[in-house]
Amino acid sequence: MSLRRPYLLFVGDARDDLAAKTAHGILDWRRDWCLGKLSLPGCQARLDLPEVSIDEAAARGAGTLVVGVAVAGGALPDTWVDTLVAAVEAGLDVANGLHQRLVDIPRLADAAESCARLLFDARHPQRAFGVGTGAKRAGKRLLAVGTDCSVGKMYTALAMEREMRARGMKATFRATGQTGIFIAGEGISVDAVVSDFISGAIEWLAPDNDPDHWDVIEGQASLFHPSFAGVTLGLVHGAQPDAMVLCHEPTRTHMRGLPHRALPAIAECIEAHEYAARMVNPAARVVGVAVNTRALERAAAGDYLARLADELGLPCVDPLATGVGAIVDRLP
Amino acid sequence: MSLRRPYLLFVGDARDDLAAKTAHGILDWRRDWCLGKLSLPGCQARLDLPEVSIDEAAARGAGTLVVGVAVAGGALPDTWVDTLVAAVEAGLDVANGLHQRLVDIPRLADAAESCARLLFDARHPQRAFGVGTGAKRAGKRLLAVGTDCSVGKMYTALAMEREMRARGMKATFRATGQTGIFIAGEGISVDAVVSDFISGAIEWLAPDNDPDHWDVIEGQASLFHPSFAGVTLGLVHGAQPDAMVLCHEPTRTHMRGLPHRALPAIAECIEAHEYAARMVNPAARVVGVAVNTRALERAAAGDYLARLADELGLPCVDPLATGVGAIVDRLP
Repeated sequence: MSLRRPYLLFVGDARDDLAAKTAHGILDWRRDWCLGKLSLPGCQARLDLPEVSIDEAAARGAGTLVVGVAVAGGALPDTWVDTLVAAVEAGLDVANGLHQRLVDIPRLADAAESCARLLFDARHPQRAFGVGTGAKRAGKRLLAVGTDCSVGKMYTALAMEREMRARGMKATFRATGQTGIFIAGEGISVDAVVSDFISGAIEWLAPDNDPDHWDVIEGQASLFHPSFAGVTLGLVHGAQPDAMVLCHEPTRTHMRGLPHRALPAIAECIEAHEYAARMVNPAARVVGVAVNTRALERAAAGDYLARLADELGLPCVDPLATGVGAIVDRLP
Repeated sequence: MSLRRPYLLFVGDARDDLAAKTAHGILDWRRDWCLGKLSLPGCQARLDLPEVSIDEAAARGAGTLVVGVAVAGGALPDTWVDTLVAAVEAGLDVANGLHQRLVDIPRLADAAESCARLLFDARHPQRAFGVGTGAKRAGKRLLAVGTDCSVGKMYTALAMEREMRARGMKATFRATGQTGIFIAGEGISVDAVVSDFISGAIEWLAPDNDPDHWDVIEGQASLFHPSFAGVTLGLVHGAQPDAMVLCHEPTRTHMRGLPHRALPAIAECIEAHEYAARMVNPAARVVGVAVNTRALERAAAGDYLARLADELGLPCVDPLATGVGAIVDRLP
């Protein structure tokens, strides 16, 4: 099941661009899929897309209205429901990455049923998965991993896919979180999978493929984040990666959400991920480091990457500033 | 919420004692809670308990009929439903560790509602959990871990609790699987928790306590089992263990369910669990090894334990054959 395209990006009354991070992510990576945006009064997000009404979007063949705005608490505001119902009645599907399910909103569920439209709740698994087996699969797999949560794993995986495709390689981005799912048009929100089935879900997401095909799998959290490391380990085992890219944010002073916990050293983090991955793929190794240097001055960023590359003996890049070509060069 | 006692152990038409493993486990560790057993025609399990009818059990104050028999596929046979409905109508709660939920059987759900009785599905979480924080909690915690699945983690944890209590120590067994939940009267089936909340669920299960109190936490699976290692890592992080006991079955030739995967070396397994646990508790260490030697000759078992103890410099015991006193001696 893939989401129907093109998308109409709904940003509601987003109070700033951070609140509209999902919409920005989709636009950054799948501009061709975005027909326009739809805002409500008061919206402060500045998305570089034309404002398009529901009727106009429907007339131009929009497939899905994607809720591209986050709200504190994860509950969908009542003031949005009229808009979503109108989208369904105009013939669009609706996709949502908030905790609250669209299917639990009676008016919307009724409208979707009578109009035979799809309500897609990306945070909730669409199907059941089996237990992982660790059996070797054909094709190659790259997994983005991280020193912490929110250090650029999705952007790194997408940059790898883009660079690999630009070189004529066979590569498919595999999404494991909400925004990634909208960008791929499909995927699994792995942190919502029942824990017995984490690795099984990823085995399903990245199945047998051509020997020269790469699945580029979005990572989640970190082996070093005690709130979520179980998700990460299951993801590593399910991915069976041939190659990993370690993602890092150099100005972070502590693990996300845990003020008293320091980040791991990069070398230790590489060693731990290689140890975990070799249980399912003896050839697994970290092939490069992707650093989000946005918070550094340009010269400092260059120094940082050069020093790190020297220290680790690995290509160290900023996916947005330098590109990921140096890492793609080193893929096995 | 604790299950009401005493229990009436329902063994259905179990074809052998292995099928009635849950009932045997409850009887082994909580004989005082077991009022009797209830069989259906054809039952081949030999449980050392008197056969007691539902009416007699109700008259003698039974609190809960516990389904103590496993069935292939995890679906509850239709032929059992009359019995379970009769138990509810006689005033008993019903508890079940099969995959299929009692609450999804309409006749039984209706009976439970009209009689105000509880249907308890141990494999399914009874509540929502928060995300784990890794914050240090008061009291001490011991976690049973393993080289593989089904190597005696529950029995080892229960033997530790029994020995600690016999010495006048404060100790509470904390259950993380179905049979353990019936033995504790409460607990969390951790493999059924959504993966984002594994460590949070265990933090809830083993909360702050007296400084000299030990929570003795049942482990699940193994860091080295690629199907379930995410569950194990989340459990280790949520448990924040001061001490771990590594459980092992010495005649196993491969990881359970994975014919081509060898078991890890015991020393490597100790190192990996200590590394993972020290992320949340720098003092964490493996304090002993619990070996299920049932498949060995008595002399060979003694030799095996002595050699292993010498090699590791740790007490190595068989919880049933030698007791776990040597490990309790070494608790920090």
